[in-house]
Amino acid sequence: MQGATPLANADSVDGMASLTPEAFEPALLNLISDWLGPEPTAVIACGMVGAKQGWVEAPYVAVPTMPLAPPVLVKTKSSVISVHIIPGLQQPNPADVMRGEETQIAGFLALNPGWDGVICMPGTHSKWVLVSAGEVVNFQTFMTGELFATLSQHTVLRHSIAAVGWDETAFFEAVEDAISKPERIAARLFSLRAEDLLNSQPKSTARSRLSGLLIGAELAASRPYWLGQNIAIIGADKTADIYASALARQGAPATITDPTRMTLAGLTAAYRLTKENT
Amino acid sequence: MQGATPLANADSVDGMASLTPEAFEPALLNLISDWLGPEPTAVIACGMVGAKQGWVEAPYVAVPTMPLAPPVLVKTKSSVISVHIIPGLQQPNPADVMRGEETQIAGFLALNPGWDGVICMPGTHSKWVLVSAGEVVNFQTFMTGELFATLSQHTVLRHSIAAVGWDETAFFEAVEDAISKPERIAARLFSLRAEDLLNSQPKSTARSRLSGLLIGAELAASRPYWLGQNIAIIGADKTADIYASALARQGAPATITDPTRMTLAGLTAAYRLTKENT
Repeated sequence: MQGATPLANADSVDGMASLTPEAFEPALLNLISDWLGPEPTAVIACGMVGAKQGWVEAPYVAVPTMPLAPPVLVKTKSSVISVHIIPGLQQPNPADVMRGEETQIAGFLALNPGWDGVICMPGTHSKWVLVSAGEVVNFQTFMTGELFATLSQHTVLRHSIAAVGWDETAFFEAVEDAISKPERIAARLFSLRAEDLLNSQPKSTARSRLSGLLIGAELAASRPYWLGQNIAIIGADKTADIYASALARQGAPATITDPTRMTLAGLTAAYRLTKENT
Repeated sequence: MQGATPLANADSVDGMASLTPEAFEPALLNLISDWLGPEPTAVIACGMVGAKQGWVEAPYVAVPTMPLAPPVLVKTKSSVISVHIIPGLQQPNPADVMRGEETQIAGFLALNPGWDGVICMPGTHSKWVLVSAGEVVNFQTFMTGELFATLSQHTVLRHSIAAVGWDETAFFEAVEDAISKPERIAARLFSLRAEDLLNSQPKSTARSRLSGLLIGAELAASRPYWLGQNIAIIGADKTADIYASALARQGAPATITDPTRMTLAGLTAAYRLTKENT
């Protein structure tokens, strides 16, 4: 079995932003105590829990490398858990980092052995990742999701952009415009405000245009990644669909895969790695 | 006399964002009461005071047009002031608006009669304005200053960007990079964070790079305005110097003029216009 079927799940808002290093173990035990027995239960963690400000730092491994480096053992006070954290990846030049995505990439490769191509991981910080012969060759991060949130909430555009609603035509126009005339991107933003003031442009149209402009800017810059490549998108629902449709219009078809499934498969692969290394 | 010498000045944080329309008159009187006599004193206003959410709306005038349209008379309860508001300008396509800058343009033209060329007004919302035969022909707004503030304060970049400090080499590299490879602009942002995490890039260098990237994006998009044109910058101190130096590197020398002086000259010209129309 390459995939993994969860028996139970639990969520918490606690994380790097709110916990001191000492507070991670009690927070985890509090969350999963019902699942634990007398013998040590293996806990495999990935993401910001391994950052410098996290529980225990799991230092970045430099690309090119396999997505999964040996997970770092965490010393715990409790003996009913045995915790490992998966290291993130770094790229010296151009400087870039990831934490968490390497686990999804490992999951994708566990489920698709021998796959070569480019993995697109849209989100707050989108990643484009070139994968070959089971290794992450290089990657590039874009702040697209964070830019969208920040521009639509913290700038003058907030008065003209809806929180929901979608205008597909406006989205595709803006993507196409950003890709074909990237030198004009900076000229497009204030228009979203002015079109509202002068022409009462619907705020859902402005939302779609901003999304198209930012995704178009990402696609213009990531073209060396996706042009003529085998593309897989690891992304949830609407966001993955939007990226796939924008890429399809550029003649670049992509397969969409589920991020939770990839994470679980990646954690499973990392768990096996800890067993091999024992 | 085309210029104007202030006898006194007064500031207040009150404005469109905090005042209801009824509250403008008392706020103004409170600020300038010491200057008033028994006879009506002329008050000429420009900027957001004339917006829909301001004191009284002074509707936008469409370009191409002279920068100063006839100021709109405001009905006041008090008889010791006679208030006029200068209308802003609008451009139907591409949609764009200005309020306040038209007064500075009018001041610049009053001080430089017969001047033709492009006026650059850097700031929170930078404007590029094509002026010919005393008219504003067209213009384009860029959110450069607001983008800089938002990205350095409200995104993950805030951890890696200093509030002060300047690295001229990093600034010019980023400007040049954005102008010569505008399609790569979106790929440059997250590097500012990663260069800090991996290589401890000085936060003042990141600040200069972000500034260069955003001003470079503006210059890439505004090239049709400045290429081969007569350029005047209406801007204060450091910001005006930065734009002038970036333009000079592109072989586009610009003259810097003082915004306060231009505003006063523009208000003076508008005052004359109200007298002619009486």
